[in-house]
Amino acid sequence: MPKSSDDRPYLRGVLSPVVTPFKANLEIDKRRFVAHCRWLLDNGCDGLAVFGTNSEANSMTVQEKIELLDALLDAGVDPGRLMPGTGACAIGDAVALSAHAVKSGCAGVLMLPPFYYKNVPDEGLARYFGEVISRVDDPRLRVYLYHIPPVAQVGISLDLIARLRRDWPDTVVGIKDSSGDWSNTKAVLDAFAAGGFQVFAGSDDFLLTNLRNGGVGCITASGNVNSPAIGRLYATWEQQGADDRQRALTQTRSLLAKYPMIPALKAAIAHYSGDPDWATVRPPLQALTQAQAESLAKSLAEDGFTMPGLARPGM
Amino acid sequence: MPKSSDDRPYLRGVLSPVVTPFKANLEIDKRRFVAHCRWLLDNGCDGLAVFGTNSEANSMTVQEKIELLDALLDAGVDPGRLMPGTGACAIGDAVALSAHAVKSGCAGVLMLPPFYYKNVPDEGLARYFGEVISRVDDPRLRVYLYHIPPVAQVGISLDLIARLRRDWPDTVVGIKDSSGDWSNTKAVLDAFAAGGFQVFAGSDDFLLTNLRNGGVGCITASGNVNSPAIGRLYATWEQQGADDRQRALTQTRSLLAKYPMIPALKAAIAHYSGDPDWATVRPPLQALTQAQAESLAKSLAEDGFTMPGLARPGM
Repeated sequence: MPKSSDDRPYLRGVLSPVVTPFKANLEIDKRRFVAHCRWLLDNGCDGLAVFGTNSEANSMTVQEKIELLDALLDAGVDPGRLMPGTGACAIGDAVALSAHAVKSGCAGVLMLPPFYYKNVPDEGLARYFGEVISRVDDPRLRVYLYHIPPVAQVGISLDLIARLRRDWPDTVVGIKDSSGDWSNTKAVLDAFAAGGFQVFAGSDDFLLTNLRNGGVGCITASGNVNSPAIGRLYATWEQQGADDRQRALTQTRSLLAKYPMIPALKAAIAHYSGDPDWATVRPPLQALTQAQAESLAKSLAEDGFTMPGLARPGM
Repeated sequence: MPKSSDDRPYLRGVLSPVVTPFKANLEIDKRRFVAHCRWLLDNGCDGLAVFGTNSEANSMTVQEKIELLDALLDAGVDPGRLMPGTGACAIGDAVALSAHAVKSGCAGVLMLPPFYYKNVPDEGLARYFGEVISRVDDPRLRVYLYHIPPVAQVGISLDLIARLRRDWPDTVVGIKDSSGDWSNTKAVLDAFAAGGFQVFAGSDDFLLTNLRNGGVGCITASGNVNSPAIGRLYATWEQQGADDRQRALTQTRSLLAKYPMIPALKAAIAHYSGDPDWATVRPPLQALTQAQAESLAKSLAEDGFTMPGLARPGM
């Protein structure tokens, strides 16, 4: 593994784990995906964590993800703003996705730990990440660890971060903490932020607190719909009124969080774009019922929420 | 989906979720895999549930599994004795594996539910299985549901079984219950066995009880090493001394279960075959330490355990 002499800036700020649009037959709709990515980059997102949990990435095959990344790059989106999710249960899958991302110039990759086997030792997880990094074998690779114990069940401990930082200081450069537990994010910041480790909160609920404690931004589900306001807080977090702006973000997120998050995000986009097909999810997820979607739209409207400039592609 | 007019007998008895041998570089060792499959079929196994949890199947890519199944069939193993694991998080992966298995003549497929997203509704899981079955679109397909909540976290409820039996009566034909909870297996038997549903216990600990309550056998980790004794109990379960034979199985399994199961199985095979490479596991799993492996071998020897006829292939 050659040492990195990489002086690219790190990706910072607000990233959206972009939801993936499907057609009625459950195929990926590349055209709507590209359009949504463009809307996000034009409306407050500094980067896109495509193929995250909220992207239903684990409901997509490796080949589907490679082709979708290519479609995004072919459409002219800057790979320097992309942090695709590339973690997988099988090392071979993680290597294929990560190698394709780094070869395509992506700013980094967001790596889940292998999540099928439970109660695995940190030693085994360290060997997993080490195998993937060794096999990709590219000094441009930047790995962001993805800690999301409520879903993956397999987490990223402080000991594991320390070991990976020691073994791969130029490659393992950051984390997304989706534990929902601020005390964990704080412990990661306290241990590693001073050494340059890039800590993203996994929710905009913690954006301001994370920035005030040495974090670099957030990668947040609600960034799919509320990126203008989230981006505004990121741009002005040291200015007066930041706490009020944070409270408004938390309020909007709470309206979404009354429902399963991915179907709720898609229902909101379907509503504001006037494109009902956006509501489609892949099994095992289930779309909101019409009553739920109407109730969500009503509560967002009462809150004054909008998605300016969002429209069905081609309309 | 054409109706099945299928009169093939169902696979019954003792199935081993075959452990997968890896070379030092973590590549699959097809030759040792075929040899172990042959030993199992010659020593008490009625069938082979290749690509199960104990096979580290979720640490293998789809392509690796397809090629390994082909190697087994090319070696002359009867596909009528195979029940490969084909469940995956992505529908596309489950379809590719299941279609290949059914086209190859396999007796059935053992399907995990999609296991990344947690707390998903039964409706979504039913749609997942329905999509896979519809896309494979082959009347020979026989699906065995794989209920293993300690690992997958996402389980197969009685309501889900009832719904799938109603929607796909000729296709969804059985289950492996690895809950470790006999009351769950009993509830499944009581609800569905009389209707022809094929219930395998997920451990030989429950083999005798399962058979006495209308079950058809077991698919058991320890079948990888203790298949002669497990097969003997299956063949003689209605004869005198069956409870003693069950107690002996449970005793042997308890020696293995003092350690993480997959590394323990591989350590035992390495010991009895004289082939130390068998101990290799893929990350995130970790091989037993030498001290653990020696302690396991000692306790098995004290218990009078052997693996007759097991040898390094080509020796």
